[in-house]
Amino acid sequence: MEKQRVPLLLVTDLINIRYATGFRGTAGVALFGPEEALLWVDPRYTLQAQQEAPRLEVIEEKHGLLRGVASWLRRNEVRHVGYEPSHLTCAELDQLVRATHTRVKFKSAGALIEELRLVKDQQEIENIRRAGKLIATVFEGVLHQVRPGVSESDLAAEIEYRIRKNGAERTAFETIVASGIRGAYPHARASSKLLEKNEFVIFDLGAILSGYAADMTRTVYLGEPSRRVRNLFYAVVGAQRRAVEALRAGVRAGDVDAAARRAVQARGLGRYFTHSTGHGVGLEVHEGPRLGRGEKTRLKPGYVVTVEPAVYLEGFGGVRIEDTVLVRPEGPEVLTPACKENWVIN
Amino acid sequence: MEKQRVPLLLVTDLINIRYATGFRGTAGVALFGPEEALLWVDPRYTLQAQQEAPRLEVIEEKHGLLRGVASWLRRNEVRHVGYEPSHLTCAELDQLVRATHTRVKFKSAGALIEELRLVKDQQEIENIRRAGKLIATVFEGVLHQVRPGVSESDLAAEIEYRIRKNGAERTAFETIVASGIRGAYPHARASSKLLEKNEFVIFDLGAILSGYAADMTRTVYLGEPSRRVRNLFYAVVGAQRRAVEALRAGVRAGDVDAAARRAVQARGLGRYFTHSTGHGVGLEVHEGPRLGRGEKTRLKPGYVVTVEPAVYLEGFGGVRIEDTVLVRPEGPEVLTPACKENWVIN
Repeated sequence: MEKQRVPLLLVTDLINIRYATGFRGTAGVALFGPEEALLWVDPRYTLQAQQEAPRLEVIEEKHGLLRGVASWLRRNEVRHVGYEPSHLTCAELDQLVRATHTRVKFKSAGALIEELRLVKDQQEIENIRRAGKLIATVFEGVLHQVRPGVSESDLAAEIEYRIRKNGAERTAFETIVASGIRGAYPHARASSKLLEKNEFVIFDLGAILSGYAADMTRTVYLGEPSRRVRNLFYAVVGAQRRAVEALRAGVRAGDVDAAARRAVQARGLGRYFTHSTGHGVGLEVHEGPRLGRGEKTRLKPGYVVTVEPAVYLEGFGGVRIEDTVLVRPEGPEVLTPACKENWVIN
Repeated sequence: MEKQRVPLLLVTDLINIRYATGFRGTAGVALFGPEEALLWVDPRYTLQAQQEAPRLEVIEEKHGLLRGVASWLRRNEVRHVGYEPSHLTCAELDQLVRATHTRVKFKSAGALIEELRLVKDQQEIENIRRAGKLIATVFEGVLHQVRPGVSESDLAAEIEYRIRKNGAERTAFETIVASGIRGAYPHARASSKLLEKNEFVIFDLGAILSGYAADMTRTVYLGEPSRRVRNLFYAVVGAQRRAVEALRAGVRAGDVDAAARRAVQARGLGRYFTHSTGHGVGLEVHEGPRLGRGEKTRLKPGYVVTVEPAVYLEGFGGVRIEDTVLVRPEGPEVLTPACKENWVIN
């Protein structure tokens, strides 16, 4: 906050609020200062906030949280407040400005809390490790049900059921099961399509455990793979391994992306790898840093990221392999330890 | 758009984009004008956007969607653009202003598309009706598993599995199973707590089917209810019925809330009913109108709302009963037809 020169920071992102306070409700606004630690909630969440965020002064507000914040700012004759520009809408800023009669100056404070969240501590890593083991176990447990005639959405339902039964709070996102030509859509949902012989099937699954996410993708092939199919699969597996090996403290995020991209390009498939190599994982399943072309951020120990190169061939299908990986001083640790090599299902 | 005097409308809310275009991806920006219908997507979604939004001109943008929008606005020498103030962050507006070199005036256009979404057409109603029947069926199917010794999260997992297996795209929110004193938290999640004898259990479940949500809550009691328990339960059931009956075209939203509140107050429980009576349901599980104290909006045929009065007693438990209900000229239609009266489980 000193760096951004804001005496008070208004936190409106719920994930940042959870990180900074422990409060897990679906509505709340926090304010931090040298001596201030306040949390506004509506009556649904008063008890829960007091329990989850015992160090904060919880203020129950029945008529709009920002109205409560504005009246506190007026009462305390505050002149300057920093806000989270990516987590405050134009409508909300407008409301704050009006309700404080333009006596308070609101200033963008950048992504202060997101920066703190990049480096995970031991407890956070342990949560992600447990979530990663859970989805690896779930995937391997479902593999025997993957065969021609089963629908994508039945497999997705089975995966999500097992994620919950194995103790996750919830899935980290809607489970993707994309078979055949649907696999050429990087974010295809599971549909009622039945799996058929001679197609790739992409499984992309995630779980949240104690608030923390892990994210993993595996691709299998139903039937006897042709030479083209083998080439596609091993191009992606190889690129993924290269990129994981490149994940070292001090390396730039863009260099990890480049490692994956070079490997795919070496197989002549560069133009089919249409997204970046990965993203950070933590309280959110997509957070910083981005492992994309030219990204200059240097990786630090405690960063947790996905590594997920892929190829997408319109009208044919797709292959994507993804692990959630921890950056350590001694090298990468894969946190989603499901086998990649049992990919041919006959 | 004429009312708001904006020649072009920038749509950044994904649900509004889906409503207006059919595109269902997780990232996109649309622009509408007298002759313009444009959709910017990143390469992950190019194929999908062309397929789902065939009437729009799909523009693939690799380096940030708003950057693509800004460069289009510059190239076409646009002077005025309306935006969605509740769906554009301060950071995004700032980016647009900079990238258009302050030559474009951006103006808040209010909630134009949300207003269109309030009245559901026949197809939308049918989608919600199917989602409502689905969750009613799922709840009634799970009821025989509700007994002392089962954990909240196992029941939630079972419910979510059945929601998927019965053909929903996904759950509309994380299923709530809150037993005993946890029921006093209106938005408690399902935990590892085991159900015990002599407690209320609240089930709050929702499903999305063809994009549309339905939302329902039922409360049961394990064991032989005391007089106090019966009073609490019937106070809420009665209030809920009163509020449903009050749901008529032309009535103000606040009057429906008042009908529920009066009934709870008549039992001396007014102070334990701590939230508003309901909310609209459609492409989002929470949308307009709000059925809250003093809300002046008049209900129209085709509105779909929840009706969910409740009482929450700290240290004891809670009772909430909720249906998703359609407003019709001839009176309300309950779209979540699960029995409320089988509430005692012995």
